[in-house]
Amino acid sequence: MDKQKFSKHVELKKIKITDPFWLGETELVRKEVIPYQYEALHDRIEGADKSYAIENFIKAGRVVSALKNGEEVPVYPADKWCYDDNNAHPDAFHGWVFQDSDVYKWLEAVAFSLSDCPDAELEAKADRVIDLVCGAQLENGYLDTLYVINNRSGIFSNLKDFHELYCFGHLSEAAVAYYKATGKRKLFDAACRFADLICDTFGEDKIKGYGGHEIAEMALVKLFDVTENKKYLDAAEFFINERGKKPYYYDTVLGRETVYDNYHYNQAHCEPRKQHEAVGHAVRGVYLYSGMADVAKRCGDDELYSACKKLVENIIDKKMYITGGIGSTVDGEAFSFDYDLPNDLAYAETCASIGFVFFARRMLEIAPDADIADAAERAIYNTVLSGMAQDGKSFFYVNPLEVLPEASHKDSRKRHVKPVRQKWFGCACCPPNLARLISSIGEYCFTENDEALFVHQFIGCEAKAENADIKISSTYAENGRVTIEIRPEKEITLAVRIPKWCGKYTFSLPCEVKDGYAYFRISDEATLEAEFDMQAKLIKCSNRVRENTGKVAVVRGPFVYCAEEADNGKNLQMLRISKEPDFRCDGDTVIADGFREKEDGALYSEWSEAEETPVQIKLIPYYKWGNRGENEMCVYIRI
Amino acid sequence: MDKQKFSKHVELKKIKITDPFWLGETELVRKEVIPYQYEALHDRIEGADKSYAIENFIKAGRVVSALKNGEEVPVYPADKWCYDDNNAHPDAFHGWVFQDSDVYKWLEAVAFSLSDCPDAELEAKADRVIDLVCGAQLENGYLDTLYVINNRSGIFSNLKDFHELYCFGHLSEAAVAYYKATGKRKLFDAACRFADLICDTFGEDKIKGYGGHEIAEMALVKLFDVTENKKYLDAAEFFINERGKKPYYYDTVLGRETVYDNYHYNQAHCEPRKQHEAVGHAVRGVYLYSGMADVAKRCGDDELYSACKKLVENIIDKKMYITGGIGSTVDGEAFSFDYDLPNDLAYAETCASIGFVFFARRMLEIAPDADIADAAERAIYNTVLSGMAQDGKSFFYVNPLEVLPEASHKDSRKRHVKPVRQKWFGCACCPPNLARLISSIGEYCFTENDEALFVHQFIGCEAKAENADIKISSTYAENGRVTIEIRPEKEITLAVRIPKWCGKYTFSLPCEVKDGYAYFRISDEATLEAEFDMQAKLIKCSNRVRENTGKVAVVRGPFVYCAEEADNGKNLQMLRISKEPDFRCDGDTVIADGFREKEDGALYSEWSEAEETPVQIKLIPYYKWGNRGENEMCVYIRI
Repeated sequence: MDKQKFSKHVELKKIKITDPFWLGETELVRKEVIPYQYEALHDRIEGADKSYAIENFIKAGRVVSALKNGEEVPVYPADKWCYDDNNAHPDAFHGWVFQDSDVYKWLEAVAFSLSDCPDAELEAKADRVIDLVCGAQLENGYLDTLYVINNRSGIFSNLKDFHELYCFGHLSEAAVAYYKATGKRKLFDAACRFADLICDTFGEDKIKGYGGHEIAEMALVKLFDVTENKKYLDAAEFFINERGKKPYYYDTVLGRETVYDNYHYNQAHCEPRKQHEAVGHAVRGVYLYSGMADVAKRCGDDELYSACKKLVENIIDKKMYITGGIGSTVDGEAFSFDYDLPNDLAYAETCASIGFVFFARRMLEIAPDADIADAAERAIYNTVLSGMAQDGKSFFYVNPLEVLPEASHKDSRKRHVKPVRQKWFGCACCPPNLARLISSIGEYCFTENDEALFVHQFIGCEAKAENADIKISSTYAENGRVTIEIRPEKEITLAVRIPKWCGKYTFSLPCEVKDGYAYFRISDEATLEAEFDMQAKLIKCSNRVRENTGKVAVVRGPFVYCAEEADNGKNLQMLRISKEPDFRCDGDTVIADGFREKEDGALYSEWSEAEETPVQIKLIPYYKWGNRGENEMCVYIRI
Repeated sequence: MDKQKFSKHVELKKIKITDPFWLGETELVRKEVIPYQYEALHDRIEGADKSYAIENFIKAGRVVSALKNGEEVPVYPADKWCYDDNNAHPDAFHGWVFQDSDVYKWLEAVAFSLSDCPDAELEAKADRVIDLVCGAQLENGYLDTLYVINNRSGIFSNLKDFHELYCFGHLSEAAVAYYKATGKRKLFDAACRFADLICDTFGEDKIKGYGGHEIAEMALVKLFDVTENKKYLDAAEFFINERGKKPYYYDTVLGRETVYDNYHYNQAHCEPRKQHEAVGHAVRGVYLYSGMADVAKRCGDDELYSACKKLVENIIDKKMYITGGIGSTVDGEAFSFDYDLPNDLAYAETCASIGFVFFARRMLEIAPDADIADAAERAIYNTVLSGMAQDGKSFFYVNPLEVLPEASHKDSRKRHVKPVRQKWFGCACCPPNLARLISSIGEYCFTENDEALFVHQFIGCEAKAENADIKISSTYAENGRVTIEIRPEKEITLAVRIPKWCGKYTFSLPCEVKDGYAYFRISDEATLEAEFDMQAKLIKCSNRVRENTGKVAVVRGPFVYCAEEADNGKNLQMLRISKEPDFRCDGDTVIADGFREKEDGALYSEWSEAEETPVQIKLIPYYKWGNRGENEMCVYIRI
């Protein structure tokens, strides 16, 4: 690592989003998603699966009071991943083992939203939720409603499958965000108390365990960044160093030899610094890698950074859909092998792309890297935004690149591929994760150090960086135009990413171009006009990906496009796009010349050139698919 | 149904196979498969999963003796599908619930083999096995080792999941074959005694149940055909008529409303005569349809025949791979929806294609139909033969159309797709089923009635039909040439199928061509020379099948061809076959002109015409794939 290249992101508090495209999304989160999710967490959405999340905190609060009063508290089983009305006592914990995290993600989204847009009523609601959360904390700092309600003696007994360290991570992330947004310490103090307990419990000469679902690593670094208490950083480092060591902790607990898969699913098959291929549950993976990058930077750990580099390259070069989706198999919601990127069987969970964006920013804070920033952009504008309906009321977990509704209904292999977005899920990780990413999108625009201010993403905003005020006026999503007004406090370098998707670009100021960034020396107030050519393009996927040989995708600027049945009729596989498709734009719709094959009558027949009719293929941005009821969709089209 | 068109197949006893291609296969079964399977049934194959099949009969025999002697006999659980050394008492039943059927299928294959090629030593072995089988029969005729050994009081209590009626069916088929081959009645009498018990147990005013895995229907018809005892036909008809009636028998037994899938898996979701789409477990499906065709013909049941016609058309027109494989999803080893024929996820079980051949012959016995005979031929020469290695010692269950070994190893969605044939399986339905089909292949050549003798498949042989002696000298598999010498006892019509794959054909005698058959009037000794053009062809799959748009398969005569890595290198998806491929043959290998794309370095890049190198694509018959170790294979190639 070259410490000269280190930078840090500009804090959300110092950024005001003004971008017309992004204001639409952030307002949707503020006005629709956050209130909707508040109702969902309180089980007040008709027709949606019950969350039980708030109810669990209320129950846990009762247990805490009873314990304080020395009352007898019953014990319930804590041995399953999910507890519903049929298999749990009414007074016991309900929902998934990680249900608490939904409340934390909601609180974090609220915090981000309050940063940008104060709202006393919303803050009051959040404070009430925080009271419930803090009321559920045991005296020793422990806070996880499953074990608080059901069985205090089971605490930290099954780190692999149950999510105490995961919920701790989300609690801490929410606490840091809420503290930064409001200055209120109640939740932050609760998180620190839980963190202290964790530091006392895990470590050399203590329990040598680590969470089955990573996030505690990066959360502890956030606590460290705010408190500067080194024990939190040490704990994060400990969790990373201990992971995957043999004999496996998880085996030691169970008192057996590994019989299953050596814990690839949990990225615990080997030590993280020896991991060079992204494997296992994709969300867990990118959360771990985020924590690894955090620790590598703060501890100056080159070996760990080297692993992070190899992992991010493996993902970008061999395991990422063109839409920025990662984790191509439903089985284990996991990374598959290199170049295994099936379109119709894709998992590509919304949360995994969100996690990739976290990982990417941390890598950019270690060193600028246009490939990583490009991949993050692709993820943000496609798979992440695709996760939410245009009305903010329904959500995709899974983001396939090809959908045939009949297959989703009739073919069990594609049961995970939903042709329309779903209401709040019982296992609702994605919607609140989306809310927190979108409402903090400003944090992904810039990184800065003493010498330079980097613009990684082009989102219209006004920001107060350390050494400069910067204002971005952007119609980037619409036409690739960006105006950057900068008022430096001293001479600095402004570094602007040049998106890889644009062949042509113009800058109004002289610059030096290097490794995908344009570097401008700025000594005084300046205005930079940048234009990135948004001409739609045919993009091919490597012929190592078996599904896409002979096919292309259409990409325009940061957006990947797709064809839907609503515009192009059934049987999208019968479409063929012209090699010179004469792209026309109509708003954000792209029209391309192409052909439609006549339907074959016989299942098998002697080959002859297909009978085709010229057609205009209408393409819409991928993130907008599935907003017009069930219909076929595909990203790749034959050429 | 038009009874004028009825015919019946020429019995195996009256046919002597002389075909050089098929002698290779039947000899392999006789010399390798049957002895190998005998060892496997006795658990004497090192490294193969244990069968336990013979052991179960020995244990059951002990129970029967003990019961006769009035001794106390222990009871073991009979509540699982599979019992191994870990979950079963040493004295209890072991293996799958349908383990007995492997012994019966072996006996049937032996019977067919003895028909063609008497072998005193083999017959003595079979007689010893038959003694074991008959020794396991209860006094009331019941014979299924699971319940005989484990729990006599559970007999017929779970017809849906356990396989008593299925094992009965295989017992009866073996018994009929062995009786016809050797004249020995011991096994046949045992089957009739079991059939009598079944007739006494099931029917109007008795138990209104039916087997979860069909076969009893066609087996009872075989018993009827030999004994002319109408109660066996009535029982077959009862099972068919009762199936799928509401309230569902399976629900009645469980005392509940259907909560699952309305029994599509078992083809029990509605009455067979109302079934027009092939659904559920594919082997069960075609076994049921075979029984339906048998009963329809013998009972003159037009409605039932009409359902059979719709089912066979649905399979051939919408649910069959070009290789004759059926049942395209691993989930439930089942038919998927129309046109869902994925290449790499295919199930296409060997047994399902074997079952289709059974069904096809029964349909041909009702009326000649070139489409059905063609489909049966495609199944026989491709998926069926593919099931067995060239040395007869390993077997495919699953017959995919595209294989990437890495995917089979690393992608759980393709775990069922094996890149090389496996030794004897614990659940070993396919190998003995293959043995019995191949050793009785002669039975699929001809059907006859008083007026006509039909040649449906061109397999070199000498046969004594009712009204004619016929001799086929065939190099059909090699070059499409067939010589038919016929010596009629009276003036008859010789009807010869014209394979749909041949564009050109010549016959040395004048004929009338109608609906895919050439009709020759034969009044005296005659020799017909037929030649079917075997030129390799490019075949396209309907563009309703999403996977195969823009691709072709190569077909030569009855054989579908495939490309293997061993001949064409890795990354077969980078191959493209020329539109005018100038096919050359080298033995049964086909060489075609084509191109190989240069491998793309980047995962995504702007589209441009691919850099390609001209190559010669080497193709081998599909049934031979996977005989040279693990390697990539594909049937469809881009054009």
